[in-house]
Amino acid sequence: MDALAELVEALPAGVVVTDPVRTEKYRWDRSQDPGAGTPVAVVRAEDAGQVQTAVRWAARHGVPVVPRGAGTGLSGGASAVDGGIVLSLERMRAVEVDPFSQVAVVEPGALNAEVKAAAAEHGLWYPPDPSSYEICSIGGNVATNAGGLCCVKYGVTTDYVLGLDVVLADGTLVTLGGTRIKDVAGLSLLKLFVGSEGTLGVVTRAVMRLVPAQVVGATLVAAFPTMTAAAEAVVAIRRTLRPSMLELMDRPSIRAVEQHRSMGLDTTAGALLVAQSDAPGSACTAEVASMQAACEAAGASDVLVTDDLEEGELFVRARRMVIPAVEELGELMLEDVGVPVPRLPELVAAVADISARHDLLIPVVAHAGDGNTHPLVVVPRGDDAARVRALEAFEEIMRVAISLDGTITGEHGVGRTKKAALPEQLGEDVMALTRRVKDALDPAGILNPGAVL
Amino acid sequence: MDALAELVEALPAGVVVTDPVRTEKYRWDRSQDPGAGTPVAVVRAEDAGQVQTAVRWAARHGVPVVPRGAGTGLSGGASAVDGGIVLSLERMRAVEVDPFSQVAVVEPGALNAEVKAAAAEHGLWYPPDPSSYEICSIGGNVATNAGGLCCVKYGVTTDYVLGLDVVLADGTLVTLGGTRIKDVAGLSLLKLFVGSEGTLGVVTRAVMRLVPAQVVGATLVAAFPTMTAAAEAVVAIRRTLRPSMLELMDRPSIRAVEQHRSMGLDTTAGALLVAQSDAPGSACTAEVASMQAACEAAGASDVLVTDDLEEGELFVRARRMVIPAVEELGELMLEDVGVPVPRLPELVAAVADISARHDLLIPVVAHAGDGNTHPLVVVPRGDDAARVRALEAFEEIMRVAISLDGTITGEHGVGRTKKAALPEQLGEDVMALTRRVKDALDPAGILNPGAVL
Ligand SMILES: Cc1cc2nc3c(=O)[nH]c(=O)nc-3n(C[C@H](O)[C@H](O)[C@H](O)COP(=O)(O)OP(=O)(O)OC[C@H]3O[C@@H](n4cnc5c(N)ncnc54)[C@H](O)[C@@H]3O)c2cc1C
Ligand SMILES: Cc1cc2nc3c(=O)[nH]c(=O)nc-3n(C[C@H](O)[C@H](O)[C@H](O)COP(=O)(O)OP(=O)(O)OC[C@H]3O[C@@H](n4cnc5c(N)ncnc54)[C@H](O)[C@@H]3O)c2cc1C
Repeated sequence: MDALAELVEALPAGVVVTDPVRTEKYRWDRSQDPGAGTPVAVVRAEDAGQVQTAVRWAARHGVPVVPRGAGTGLSGGASAVDGGIVLSLERMRAVEVDPFSQVAVVEPGALNAEVKAAAAEHGLWYPPDPSSYEICSIGGNVATNAGGLCCVKYGVTTDYVLGLDVVLADGTLVTLGGTRIKDVAGLSLLKLFVGSEGTLGVVTRAVMRLVPAQVVGATLVAAFPTMTAAAEAVVAIRRTLRPSMLELMDRPSIRAVEQHRSMGLDTTAGALLVAQSDAPGSACTAEVASMQAACEAAGASDVLVTDDLEEGELFVRARRMVIPAVEELGELMLEDVGVPVPRLPELVAAVADISARHDLLIPVVAHAGDGNTHPLVVVPRGDDAARVRALEAFEEIMRVAISLDGTITGEHGVGRTKKAALPEQLGEDVMALTRRVKDALDPAGILNPGAVL
Repeated sequence: MDALAELVEALPAGVVVTDPVRTEKYRWDRSQDPGAGTPVAVVRAEDAGQVQTAVRWAARHGVPVVPRGAGTGLSGGASAVDGGIVLSLERMRAVEVDPFSQVAVVEPGALNAEVKAAAAEHGLWYPPDPSSYEICSIGGNVATNAGGLCCVKYGVTTDYVLGLDVVLADGTLVTLGGTRIKDVAGLSLLKLFVGSEGTLGVVTRAVMRLVPAQVVGATLVAAFPTMTAAAEAVVAIRRTLRPSMLELMDRPSIRAVEQHRSMGLDTTAGALLVAQSDAPGSACTAEVASMQAACEAAGASDVLVTDDLEEGELFVRARRMVIPAVEELGELMLEDVGVPVPRLPELVAAVADISARHDLLIPVVAHAGDGNTHPLVVVPRGDDAARVRALEAFEEIMRVAISLDGTITGEHGVGRTKKAALPEQLGEDVMALTRRVKDALDPAGILNPGAVL
């Protein structure tokens, strides 16, 4: 019996998919990584036991395993590997909320939005909110340590992970943490798996912390003549405040959204800042007033403040639409660079300069309150010369971020598309340390080979 | 030249202390672990380079290294090891605040209170506040992932660590993270070192996140007939609220404090709950009113609410005094067990039962809002029979916590005094995983041998 037949045999009918027509869509994540390979099979596991069976089989045969959530990743972390299997968690979707302990116990394939909805039924809230929250999985969020719009005030995924079940490279299932809030018994292995992009283990269950639901009191939208002025406003605001949202979109982003679907945005603005406050009562009014003053001092041409949640949500939706809208303009090379907040103006200025020098459209959208930006390098379809310039721009942007004490990736992960730049950021010694940890946990290197390292 | 002379030679005069009279006080931390050994020397490093020199020397000669901050640890994590060196960070105390990036760049020996004070000069705040904040070091806080009183709302140390310099077991110095808020480039090694209790590396610099200063608006103090009733009130409060403090002390704790220094506490109360709110404006009033209602519904006999910060601080100080006050009653075996918040009433009831069954005084004080309790098992000095019973009680309490989905240590760490119970909590597979990580980072096992593992 060949190896693949053995796998098919070991799992219930329908779990192992080998039909190339059906496996095709599991080759890529949303980055459309051109290096994506062709898997020998996709395992669509229904429970942790099946994950263990698949990983044990892979370990026995030395077959690469690429864990996959919803495939919305933007750095090729879930690109298939030639000859490997894709281990899809999309069918493991149960969500159980314990309102007393204020946790959601979640299977990895459950969508972020499903966890939010289940929490809301109990007056609770799961904060982390990637723009993709309606289409990305909690397992993917954990594996990438996903960020989002509310993170400026509420933190990122790792801040909400209380427990994980993880299938290790040899098929062992370990349970780390649990429903208790504080726990320092032993090494912090739980946090090591968060953000490990499927290279150390497969998450089969997560215990996520919930918090009492918050109410957004007001939305502020400010138009600026330039992106730099808007970034200055962000720096000023963050000096004293942590609003519940502080996002930026530049003119090319605004225009892409308007072209995609008319939202009535001011396409003459150099940049739009979208901020929200969920501070209670009069504190909200005060917070918004401070933000407004900071925007005006930084040269905002127009500031709208509304306590109409519907009206505010329109602008937030526009902000969330930027990536899909820009995707229509060509192939994207998606950046995710971050810097300390005070260096945001320098970063956006440098990106504008790179855009001009390489004659490329690079719309910039940003979780600005955390210093995390997404310059979206656009390659007009079929323009090979532009692709060459784009690759250069992509690398230059990362280099600029590093030179500003920043990072090549704030939330999307290294995956495969940013792997080449990782050593420049981390340095040799940290790379060696990383490899030691990887080797200790996955000595045969079967888990997501080619990602991160 | 013998090995020790080589170390003395390699470092500036005064750095290496070998005089047994002077090294004596470096043998113990605050747990007074009876198993503490005798070091061959104490290295009082002045900078990271000297730490590297000492660790390289230790690696060459296979000498154990016990990193040590301020020695306030409560689980024997900094107990000296026979034939080893104590690597004290107490002289590395610089604190630099960058108000624009809102970070403090701190040498490990700086006291928690010194970081808070430096931040306050810029209107900023470093939240984590162990009761020992005036006497414990940031390096120790990072190494234990220390908690404290404000953690119910503001989280624990790991939530504030943005960057670390760590000297590894071979003397290599690595820099992890930095001043940016979001960063997912590579594995989450930063968080792995937090809470590693000196077993994976020596922290020589930490970049700690600061937040805008908050103002405590009101303090609530409620007296309850029993500890269980008070715990029920905590469960009710936490169902909808995250106040900025939610602490409990039981009658034996109250009495110990009053005996230590008269603070005017009600010594007839079964338990006191001390809560604070720093919600802004009218939200504070509403939060405190909700807490008061919950206390009354749970049977509080007396509820005091004050917006006089001085008056409130008196009660907080009394709460912080519990451990030193109880230390006067005998030798302590300090527990640090935690459970999911809803199970707090069961835990305190079980501890009361253990106290009665073993005829031991076990005052209980708790960071109740996080489900983290400190049953303080008192052994009257010289009472050997009591010591035997106390050891049994100590173990039973941990076992009860585990059975309630809890942890043997919520914030103090495993160190040496809780090491025996760790496998029962983590299980064989997680222990094996822990050992794999330890072996990968410290193959010769020179870093804090005997702690945790
Ligand atoms: C329009 C758009 C907007 C976005 N906005 C944001 C944003 O605001 N913030 C943000 O952080 N991201 C954002 N993303 C990126 C993406 O949605 C996130 O990275 C998300 O966390 C990926 O989840 P997924 O389920 O799609 O994971 P996948 O793409 O399937 O996988 C991502 C990585 O996680 C690993 N993985 C997945 N599941 C598991 C598991 N169970 N166990 C172990 N490893 C696993 C994979 O191997 C891969 O390395 C956006 C994407 C799109 C398309
Ligand atoms: C009265 C009292 C109240 C307390 N209240 C609390 C509380 O509310 N919350 C709480 O969490 N703790 C509390 N503690 C415990 C203690 O203060 C904390 O654990 C603190 O973090 C220890 O800091 P330290 O500098 O004293 O560390 P030490 O006792 O010197 O060392 C603690 C551990 O950290 C390691 N370590 C120290 N420095 C470094 C370094 N630079 N690099 C690597 N490893 C290092 C040591 O090897 C050891 O394992 C309390 C203690 C007392 C005495």
